[in-house]
Amino acid sequence: MNYKMIGRFIGKILLVEAAFLAPALLISIFFQETEAARAFFITIIINIVVAGVMLGAAKGAQKGFHVREGLVCVGISWIAMSVLGCLPFFLSGAIPNYVDALFETVSGFTTTGASILSDVESMPKGLLYWRSFSHWLGGMGVLVFLLAVSSGDERNKGFTMHLLRAESPGPKVGKLVPRMKRTAELLYLMYILLTVLDVVFLLIGKMPLFDAICTAFGTAGTGGFGIRNDSIAGYSPYIQNVCTVFMLLFGINFSCYYLILIRQFKSVWKDEELRLYLGIVLGSILLITINLRDYYSSLGETLRHAAFQVASIVTTTGFATTDFDLWPGFSRTILLCLMIVGACAGSTGGGFKCGRVLLILKGLRRSVQQIVHPGKIQVVRVNGRVIEEKVMENTNAYLAAYALIIVSSFLLVSIDGFSVETNFSAVISCFNNIGPGLAAVGPTCNYSAYSVFSKIVLIVNMLAGRLEIFPILILFSRTTWRHR
Amino acid sequence: MNYKMIGRFIGKILLVEAAFLAPALLISIFFQETEAARAFFITIIINIVVAGVMLGAAKGAQKGFHVREGLVCVGISWIAMSVLGCLPFFLSGAIPNYVDALFETVSGFTTTGASILSDVESMPKGLLYWRSFSHWLGGMGVLVFLLAVSSGDERNKGFTMHLLRAESPGPKVGKLVPRMKRTAELLYLMYILLTVLDVVFLLIGKMPLFDAICTAFGTAGTGGFGIRNDSIAGYSPYIQNVCTVFMLLFGINFSCYYLILIRQFKSVWKDEELRLYLGIVLGSILLITINLRDYYSSLGETLRHAAFQVASIVTTTGFATTDFDLWPGFSRTILLCLMIVGACAGSTGGGFKCGRVLLILKGLRRSVQQIVHPGKIQVVRVNGRVIEEKVMENTNAYLAAYALIIVSSFLLVSIDGFSVETNFSAVISCFNNIGPGLAAVGPTCNYSAYSVFSKIVLIVNMLAGRLEIFPILILFSRTTWRHR
Repeated sequence: MNYKMIGRFIGKILLVEAAFLAPALLISIFFQETEAARAFFITIIINIVVAGVMLGAAKGAQKGFHVREGLVCVGISWIAMSVLGCLPFFLSGAIPNYVDALFETVSGFTTTGASILSDVESMPKGLLYWRSFSHWLGGMGVLVFLLAVSSGDERNKGFTMHLLRAESPGPKVGKLVPRMKRTAELLYLMYILLTVLDVVFLLIGKMPLFDAICTAFGTAGTGGFGIRNDSIAGYSPYIQNVCTVFMLLFGINFSCYYLILIRQFKSVWKDEELRLYLGIVLGSILLITINLRDYYSSLGETLRHAAFQVASIVTTTGFATTDFDLWPGFSRTILLCLMIVGACAGSTGGGFKCGRVLLILKGLRRSVQQIVHPGKIQVVRVNGRVIEEKVMENTNAYLAAYALIIVSSFLLVSIDGFSVETNFSAVISCFNNIGPGLAAVGPTCNYSAYSVFSKIVLIVNMLAGRLEIFPILILFSRTTWRHR
Repeated sequence: MNYKMIGRFIGKILLVEAAFLAPALLISIFFQETEAARAFFITIIINIVVAGVMLGAAKGAQKGFHVREGLVCVGISWIAMSVLGCLPFFLSGAIPNYVDALFETVSGFTTTGASILSDVESMPKGLLYWRSFSHWLGGMGVLVFLLAVSSGDERNKGFTMHLLRAESPGPKVGKLVPRMKRTAELLYLMYILLTVLDVVFLLIGKMPLFDAICTAFGTAGTGGFGIRNDSIAGYSPYIQNVCTVFMLLFGINFSCYYLILIRQFKSVWKDEELRLYLGIVLGSILLITINLRDYYSSLGETLRHAAFQVASIVTTTGFATTDFDLWPGFSRTILLCLMIVGACAGSTGGGFKCGRVLLILKGLRRSVQQIVHPGKIQVVRVNGRVIEEKVMENTNAYLAAYALIIVSSFLLVSIDGFSVETNFSAVISCFNNIGPGLAAVGPTCNYSAYSVFSKIVLIVNMLAGRLEIFPILILFSRTTWRHR
């Protein structure tokens, strides 16, 4: 294990975090929030000191860097970022319990949006900004950001590749162009562009600037932290519809946007994952609208709420315009299933990912065909290209790990004694980085009632979900730390 | 597709069913149940006529028989057996609705034990016998039975192999001895022996003979249909403990008993699946006993109820001695997880099977090791033997199919509007062939409230669960029926 290299990397990540804490500090100063400003200031100092110590100790690091180190690096950076990033909440007294503050921050970085707060409107603006910004940073990934802005000092190809692979969601690493640094730059450029566009559309709907920026952060990262107690319900239908459209846009594989930029429209149109994603979205909206036909005053209103909630859940954002926990069973079950499916690979959304669902479905069809025609060699194709067996194997391993984590977390969380529906939806919601669940963790409730133990289980769930399990699994595996 | 061969086989299966209906007819005559006796008589006649037509049409069948035909054969035989086997309930008027009668019978043959009846004690004895006997026949499998008693006419090796593979539970076919017919004979011999032993132990506890036979049928097949409204709760603690022990015994891979017969005790002791199974059982009993410490009057009573319910659920039997739906959340969640795990491969129990859990866990460990040491070739070993990659692939495909069926059935059943807990546990319970679920399908309730549509979904679930998915999936696949 190349400890020095890992230490150096984490040091850099903490410096990036310190830099991003600065705007929050300025906002707190601007709004004269003394406690929050002090907390941000102290956190920035701690970040810089810890980063300095790590970078100092990492002097003379050697280049050797393997997949294992890449995964460990990603796992530890995210934990380090959260452990320090939650200090503003804790030190300012806004969230007096450290585990609660950590829960809130991990929920932010992992773009989950599950909260332990019952009254967000009373929070200082600086903290609200930092809370929403953590979604934005976590959505595309802080390591990808570091890669995009790094001076090219880390030209070790294996290094960047392994990092990007570990942090990017989906069964395959989304390499837009041969050079990884350029890929990371392009990803962040498109990300910033879409976020700005979202802010503009929200401002057109007369949303206050602060609200628009925070809402856009939550939408872009598919996070879901709102700055109002009723999430998006209090805003105008126009703003709700803007959110619906942008949530869906951020749930699409960013390589599709790159293809549009280089004018390959046909490839986008024929993309099988995109078709599955849109099919699931439209089908779910239709079924829920039928199921809710007598629920709201007009068809337009029903359609708006159905579309918003479907977009919010399938992209794993977690905003709400209505208490969907009061919807009939069929609609709630559709939402529960959407929580598992999730958005497209290579988007900022979480969940199992449409791309993996596609591979699992095609793999299953192949299994049936192999039974019927045992002699014939069958391959799985997506978008006309043959999928390597290695990718199929990894997808199956992912499903196995996914199922095991859900079952074991469900069991651990149930010790607290809440209902099966609450516990199951809490695990599904946190692990897939959504936010609200059903029943006692529904959209009008929060996670504060869970015990410290359950909160830690859910924190691990959120991290495992965002980092696609293996970086976290590797951290807890004996093999990783054993000397060869 | 070799239709004639399939027709001939199904004809034979229906004759076997007719023969097994005869004792039920005699019991009805003995207890002077006119309606039931008439219904049994008509059913036997219908079985014989249909079988005659099929055997007649199948004259001149050719030997060619592939995996595909084996699977189709198994799927259709089980459906045919159920479609005719439910007639006694329907014709006698005991269950006036045909779909309900079919539900009850499929539940019997698949050893599920989910019932639509609220008052079983008022049923004619002949019908109660047939209901319990269907568990016994379905437990080891009617095709295995036919193989054991067949004259050796079907010496086509592929034929018997494919059939046994399709009907036997578990990731690998349990071949005890090289000859398939001898394997089938041995399986049924051990099965009968254990069942008789169970009856004897129940009689020692002063259980009436009829009760003892029916209870032993339900235990041996890990079915769970009781002949009393309160299942096993009304019997003495001794009888309850006998049931606990025998349920656990029938959940063990029968190849272990064969190894004991040929005195290979060490192999049994070292069997990894058996160890996992016993570990899960003992661990669950311990955790539930701790969780229920203030629930019953004494530790002995708590332990007895905990052990009984754990044995009943993990072996997918479904008997109950107490309303476990009233237990605290943690205990109920343990039971829900046990429903999924299920018994050992090669036993009469259902579920995902401990053997598959073992393979999935070992496969996952291998995936982690492959990430950490990418150069090293890793194999999965169980009981010291290397597991073929084909078996690993099939296990992964099974998990994928398993997850997809649960999610889609859960969605379909939720149209009825019951609670998430009810629907989820109903699907888990039927698909894993357990019987009772939680909430509105808990141990003191039944499935009668579901709509016809949901009942059909659950019927397909029960069949898919018992036949390990692929025979049913193949039946509904276009590839199977397409001309080459």
